[in-house]
Amino acid sequence: MKKRDVPVDDVRRFLEPGPIVLVSSTWKGAANIMTMGWHMVMSEEPSLVGCFIWDQNHSFEMIRKSRECVINVPSVDLATTVVGIGNTSGATVDKFERFGLTAVPGRKVKAPLIGECHANFECRLVDTSLINRYSLFVFEVLKGHARVTPRFPKTLHYRGDGLFMIAGPTVRRYRKRFNPEMLRA
Amino acid sequence: MKKRDVPVDDVRRFLEPGPIVLVSSTWKGAANIMTMGWHMVMSEEPSLVGCFIWDQNHSFEMIRKSRECVINVPSVDLATTVVGIGNTSGATVDKFERFGLTAVPGRKVKAPLIGECHANFECRLVDTSLINRYSLFVFEVLKGHARVTPRFPKTLHYRGDGLFMIAGPTVRRYRKRFNPEMLRA
Repeated sequence: MKKRDVPVDDVRRFLEPGPIVLVSSTWKGAANIMTMGWHMVMSEEPSLVGCFIWDQNHSFEMIRKSRECVINVPSVDLATTVVGIGNTSGATVDKFERFGLTAVPGRKVKAPLIGECHANFECRLVDTSLINRYSLFVFEVLKGHARVTPRFPKTLHYRGDGLFMIAGPTVRRYRKRFNPEMLRA
Repeated sequence: MKKRDVPVDDVRRFLEPGPIVLVSSTWKGAANIMTMGWHMVMSEEPSLVGCFIWDQNHSFEMIRKSRECVINVPSVDLATTVVGIGNTSGATVDKFERFGLTAVPGRKVKAPLIGECHANFECRLVDTSLINRYSLFVFEVLKGHARVTPRFPKTLHYRGDGLFMIAGPTVRRYRKRFNPEMLRA
């Protein structure tokens, strides 16, 4: 799966549409993966992403202590894997091994990228002050990687209750009407 | 457009997949609407939603001062309107009038609901402490309204740069494998 470097603020193109993502981390020699549906872009410069990580997730302490993670964007071909990752705990399962995923070394963080995901964003935890109150981790994106094609893979979007919406077409037809300064927020 | 009341934590079913939304507000007799792409569910109980509202938006002060808003979820039939709302400023345009939208009175807040949107969530601003640092407004959902059918309308998901992804099908096929306690985050 050939990937290219993408600018860190390109994270918006991948995360703003709201896909479920896989968050990988490492701590004390163990790697883990969790599913995450609650996240938002918070800034383009610096490139910040806010993530809700439930304190019952095994990844919670791994990410809090290592202060790093990788946000990986799976597409629909990984749907069964995404559900499986969500249904198992890193406390008892090596998820890379169980789900046959490739741990690719990062360039900026020790947490591994998931090779099979179409985009990967290496992140550093830059604000821990909202973790206790909201389980909200604020990450800065340090490095982005993405597949060259397809440009817009079919992502999975979680609705709760076991239901997923699968991304439909990306349309350019409104682009001409568009004033980039106005629609940024 | 017949709507029913929905539980406040049902906001997740609508917002977690990541659609662009229209945020309506009122202050000193004027009503306004802005587009918003950066938001996240932050809690189910209470039902909290975090929203990035740029301080250059006309709605910023209206919402900060009134401490209320309605989060309205448009579907693809309103795409041109969504772009138009994003391209105009409430400082000079009455957007309900310009775009022929129906201001429906709320039950819990003074901000009007947008009748043409398939779901509406009346919200109160419950945490202002992150506005200065992150332009992040934390709202509690007080009341939810949604169309009965279709259950999953085709929402618009913004990719930045004038590109929209249109929601594809919602699939139930992973539901059987699903452990609701694990995948909640």
